[in-house]
Order: sequence, then C-alpha cells, then structure tokens
Amino acid sequence: MENINCNRERLEDKIVTFSKFGDTGKGGITRLSLSQPALDARAEFSKRMKAAGGEILTDDMGNMYATFEGSENLPRIAMGSHCDSVVQGGNYDGILGVMTAMEVAETMATEKIQHRHPITVIIWTNEEGARFDPAMMSSGVITGKFAKAKMLASKDNEGITFGEALDASGYKGEEKNRMNSKEYMAFVELHIEQGPVLENAKMDIGVVEGVVGMVNYEFEFIGEAGHAGTVPQKMRKDALFAASEAIQYLHRELDKLDEKLVYTTGRIICSPNVHTIIPDDVKFTLDARHQDPAVVQQVVEVIKEIPSELAKCKVSYNELWSRKTVGYNKEFVNLVEKNAKLYGYSNMRMYSGPGHDAQFVADMIPTTMIFVPSIGGNSHCEIEKTTLDDCLKGANVLLQTILDIDKASERK
Amino acid sequence: MENINCNRERLEDKIVTFSKFGDTGKGGITRLSLSQPALDARAEFSKRMKAAGGEILTDDMGNMYATFEGSENLPRIAMGSHCDSVVQGGNYDGILGVMTAMEVAETMATEKIQHRHPITVIIWTNEEGARFDPAMMSSGVITGKFAKAKMLASKDNEGITFGEALDASGYKGEEKNRMNSKEYMAFVELHIEQGPVLENAKMDIGVVEGVVGMVNYEFEFIGEAGHAGTVPQKMRKDALFAASEAIQYLHRELDKLDEKLVYTTGRIICSPNVHTIIPDDVKFTLDARHQDPAVVQQVVEVIKEIPSELAKCKVSYNELWSRKTVGYNKEFVNLVEKNAKLYGYSNMRMYSGPGHDAQFVADMIPTTMIFVPSIGGNSHCEIEKTTLDDCLKGANVLLQTILDIDKASERK
Repeated sequence: MENINCNRERLEDKIVTFSKFGDTGKGGITRLSLSQPALDARAEFSKRMKAAGGEILTDDMGNMYATFEGSENLPRIAMGSHCDSVVQGGNYDGILGVMTAMEVAETMATEKIQHRHPITVIIWTNEEGARFDPAMMSSGVITGKFAKAKMLASKDNEGITFGEALDASGYKGEEKNRMNSKEYMAFVELHIEQGPVLENAKMDIGVVEGVVGMVNYEFEFIGEAGHAGTVPQKMRKDALFAASEAIQYLHRELDKLDEKLVYTTGRIICSPNVHTIIPDDVKFTLDARHQDPAVVQQVVEVIKEIPSELAKCKVSYNELWSRKTVGYNKEFVNLVEKNAKLYGYSNMRMYSGPGHDAQFVADMIPTTMIFVPSIGGNSHCEIEKTTLDDCLKGANVLLQTILDIDKASERK
Repeated sequence: MENINCNRERLEDKIVTFSKFGDTGKGGITRLSLSQPALDARAEFSKRMKAAGGEILTDDMGNMYATFEGSENLPRIAMGSHCDSVVQGGNYDGILGVMTAMEVAETMATEKIQHRHPITVIIWTNEEGARFDPAMMSSGVITGKFAKAKMLASKDNEGITFGEALDASGYKGEEKNRMNSKEYMAFVELHIEQGPVLENAKMDIGVVEGVVGMVNYEFEFIGEAGHAGTVPQKMRKDALFAASEAIQYLHRELDKLDEKLVYTTGRIICSPNVHTIIPDDVKFTLDARHQDPAVVQQVVEVIKEIPSELAKCKVSYNELWSRKTVGYNKEFVNLVEKNAKLYGYSNMRMYSGPGHDAQFVADMIPTTMIFVPSIGGNSHCEIEKTTLDDCLKGANVLLQTILDIDKASERK
C-alpha cells in the first residue's frame, strides 16, 4: 500500500501566504502576539479551516481550535503550534506547526480519509512571550502553570495589558472551550529544531523524546572601582577579571560532565563599564540544560563549589529559574519514529532544548513533538529557514502519526 | 628662619565655599564645564582674586588668569588647575589646584611677600571633557594639540556646542591673553593623586616626575550566535568565552612585565547579551600605562602576539589612542622635593597615571605638578576626599616652590 502524502503545492502556498503577515521586507516577520499581523494570520487560519470543513472555537485565552468531526463520539486528537513571533523573527518558528497541522487536516478532508476521533488544529496564544511576558502563556494557563489574572495583567512596552489586547482582538472565547483531559486524548506539535543537530547529522526528522531540564543562574562579582592610571596592579580588585576566572572555571568543570550537556554564559553586565575605570561589579548568567536531572544536579554542584573569592573579589550566585525534564508519551514517540522510517526519512531521537507549548500540554494529555531541520541552526532571526522538502516530510509524518493514534484506540 | 605657611582657616573657607557650587546634596558636586555652577565658581574666583589685588583676564577659550604684578618686568609664573567636574564628582579634583593657588596668592598678598615676577592663578576651561569631549580641551587648544574650530563645534548631550556655551558664559576673552612661551616662564599644578599610592605609603606629598605614557586598545571577538538549548557544546563559537580567554592571556603575559605597569580591561560589550543566546560579538578595552616607553612597547608586543583565533572565534584589535610619557621640568621637580623636606613632610617621587592640563603646558614652558593624597584612592566620585591637613601641606609646598622659582631666576 502506498503511503498517503500531504500536498506540496498547498503547503507551499500556506508558507508563502503566512509569511506576508508581519513581513519585515528583509526575509522575516515581526508578528507579536495579538498584533494586527497575528490577527491577520488567525483570520487566514479560520478561512482555510472553515473551507476544509472545520468548526472554529476560541477559549478564554484566545487559543483557537479548528475541529473536524470524527465518525464516533470520542475525545479529540489535537495538533498545532503558535502563530506569534519574536521581533524580526522567521517564517517557520511556531507557524510551521500550525501550517503542517492545517495541511494534515486539509489532506484528510480532500482525500476523504476516515477518522473515528474528531481532529482539532490548534493555535496557542502568545507562545514567544515577546510582547507579553511570560512565554508559553496560554498553554500555561489552561494547564494550571500560570494564574490567569496575573497573565491578563501582563503589559507590553506600550502599557497595554494582555487582557486589553485579548478583548480588542475579537478572539476571546469561553473557558469551557479550553483543551482538557476529558475531551482531548492526544496532542502532537511539529516544530523546527532551532538548532544545527539534524542538519549536521543529515537527518530529515527529529523524533523528540522530551524537553530537557534546565537551570539558570546569575553570578555576581564585587570588586573595587578605581582609576585605570592610579591603582597599582597588586592592589586591585577587578570584578571583570574575577568574572573571566569564573567563566574559565565553569568551562573547565562543566566540560567534564556528560557531552550532551549544553551551557551558556549569554549575558554579562559590567559596572561602571568605562575604559578608564576598574570594574567593581560584574554579573553574568549561566543557562545549563540536560535531559537527565542527575546531570543538571551535577551542574548545580559545580556552581556550589565556585570559590567565594576570585581575584580578591567577592563571588555570589543565585538561581533565576529552573525547569524539570519533560518526557513525551513513549507510545507516540515510537509512532513518530516508525512513521519516519515508513516514509524512508532519515531520523534520530533527540531532546528539545527550547521550551514549547507541548511540554505544558504533556502534563494534561499524552503528547509528543516532531522536529524538522533548521538550515544553519538559525532561529529567532530573519534568515530562519526549513526547506519545503523538509516541511513536507514533517507534514507526512504528522499525518500518519495522527492516523495511527486514531486507529490505535480501536484496539483498546 | 621659619617657613612661611598658608592660612589654614582661609583655605578651609574656600573648600567649604566652592563645594556649594554644584552641590549634589550627597557629599559631592556636579559642576560640568560652563554650566551655571561652574560660572558661579568662576565668579567666586574673580571676587576673591580681585580682593587680593589680582587683575582678571580671560582668553578666547575661556581660560581665566588672575595676575598679581611683580616688582620687575619679567615673564609670569603661573599656577592653577580646573574648576569643572564629572557628573557626581568630588570637591577636590581640579578645584583644589585652583584653591591652593588662590591661597598662595592671597598669602603672598596679605604677608606682603615680595616677588619679582608677576604671579598668575589659572582656571583651565573644560579639563574633564565630561560635558564637551575631549578632556583637557582648552589647555590643548592653546598648546596646539587640538584645532580650535573643531573644539568650538563639540556638542554636549543637549546639542549645545562648546562655542555657544562659551559665548553665553561671559567668559570669552581675547586670543592675545592666552598663556604663551614669551610671557610665561613656569607653571605648577597641584592636584589630588586620585589613587591610593600616597595613602598606602603614608606620604604627605607626591613629587610628580611626569605623566605616564599609555595605550588604549579595543579587542573584538566574533563567534556564532545560537540558542542556548540547541547548539551542542563542541559546535559552539562563544565570543564571551573567547573574550575571557583573552583577558586571562593578557593578565598572564602583562603580569610578567615591570611591576609599575598598570593595565585595565574596563569596558566590555557583549552582543546580543541575552541569557538564552550564545554571544556572537564581544568587545573589551585594554588601557595600559607606564612611565617607560619601552615597557609600553612591551605591552604592544603582548597585544600583537594574541592568537588570531581563541575558542574558535576570530580575534582582532585596534588602537583607540595612545600618548607618550611626559617628563616634567627636572629643576622644578627637585624644588618640590626639597620643599616637602623643608616643611618636614614625608614625600615620594611618582608619575601621574591620569592626564592633566600640566602635561600639555609642559610642551610650552617649564612645568611640574604636586600631588596630595586621596583617601581610599577615591576620585571622580562623591566620597572623594583629601584631609585639610594634606591640602594645607600641598599649599605650603606650592607657595615655597613658586617663591623658589621667582628667586631662582635672579641667579641667571
């Protein structure tokens, strides 16, 4: 039997069309949550999903659900992602998960593929957190991670609250429409990898096993300011030199841990940051991620063993935040892997470094993710790109996985 | 014969009075060049110098000269410093050199001390460069270091040019009034040390031999940005890690050079400086100073030997500026040392790390400086402080040095 395939031209048309909503004119988009470009994308989503026979509902956080009835009265199988972007982001992060889910639903409709469960295509509101902090806001609210009242009060740079923007959007619906564990039985999110691993390994599909746990710390070094020309070298307490010693220490010690550990000292703030003054206060952040909580714990041990004094400066640190490793549904993970093989696509198992709505949903219903390659590992930038071939391969694996989940429940 | 002494109460009264001009209410002052507080300080200077018998002139850069006639028609002996400060600066940097010079002139007038040469007390305009770039602007113009037209066009943060501020100040005079090598035969500037060396050595007076030469470089490290969670450690090009390696390299190599070398990595700029993104562009500055040009050259050799690649990032550097070591007049330096001993003040020879107007003047006429201790080495901050005792000791050494210079020319 031949494998079912999504429609290449229809998928390409969606990519071209959605890339116009928030087009920066430089290859990427700025499509902040609930901004006009994001509302335009939602309208396009509604139009196309209705045309394919879907029924649109929104919940009280503005999450959109396009549902295609099944042949039996069973809980829904859901797929999708988000349509908002960061400032000067790309045309694939988030929206590709929506477009491939739309493509799967359209293929099932046009090919008249029978399914017992209702199939729902989802747009999550404000995944990026680029306009309203925090990220993954609305999947977080419906899964009980964030307090709704606090989220509604979150303000953008112009002082507009999320609640006000949601009211004005026309996409605020009822709380009873939220995804829930009774009416939904599965969620699959396709996403670009946002990293270089698949491309470097020459793999078509990333079989995502979960989202890695992480810790984020800030270190601070207190020295003594002084004029660059007057304080003898031996009397100095140079906070930037102390920070550079700490960065060296962290690299030396963390490099001894598991090779899958990733860690980043991404932000450094130096005070007073004047070329003729010895720095007296330097801070930098450490972000460390690994799928195994034991390795994350080893990172914390390394942090705790940093000397309390480096280069005569006082050293301190504090945890800014952390998250535990999330494991996706093992049965679904196996299905994704099976289906990649079925189509003859090269594939590898991997963990996601970045967070996604799926990791919150995984606490409520069985969930998994599918990754497709990012050229050059680029993401959150205008040159972010996944080839049409790879988008189509991801859509096909998503289609077959949804169909498998639909069939699998027959046997139970 | 008993040593002549300046008047402790009169000096203290000046310190108290001038500390009001630009008082921040937190122990220090903000008295930017040609601002109202600076004009108030100039008016106070005029009033007191006229009362002591001085005649006030200004030149075309607003430099002020209060001249006390001598008994013969000889070139002038000058002393003084500046009255402008940095933002939230202290009550001693610059202004103490003006106040001690005023005190010397007042002592000579009230004690009726005969002098053959005219004695001139000077306020240099815009030494700090805190409002109008560059520092030491007006001594620089009259000694041919800076082009006047370019200086007049220098703008402050509000878009006002130095020329406009000078016109509005009422202190713009004629070019013929500038200090010059025909009408002036000596300049002595008293200044706070701005560093901790005198205090630590328990010395009353710094006998300044010159201003150290310096180089200022900027290093740049180009890596590759990427998401903190997606790029495997071995594939990273982390520009901040590369910069920390370079800081370590510089400390390791520069610490092998002469122990009087001072060097500072004071400013670091990291891009994009986000905790979840691998830095792809980091820059930092290196400021290095030593009295011996050969040692400064050794620093340049160390810089040139930095690897062109560190931690897989591209390394580059460029010189932002440099200055040669300036040696003060040896005869005057000896006089300052002799006079410190004469009064029984502990003293040591030293070089100035920071730049001063005196270093420009030294190219035109015989010049030297006198340093007094800074408590804790603090300067350019509100807690900047020199004890009244030390201020008075500096004034006494300045007085006797001026008198010696006045007498010394008899023998020629």
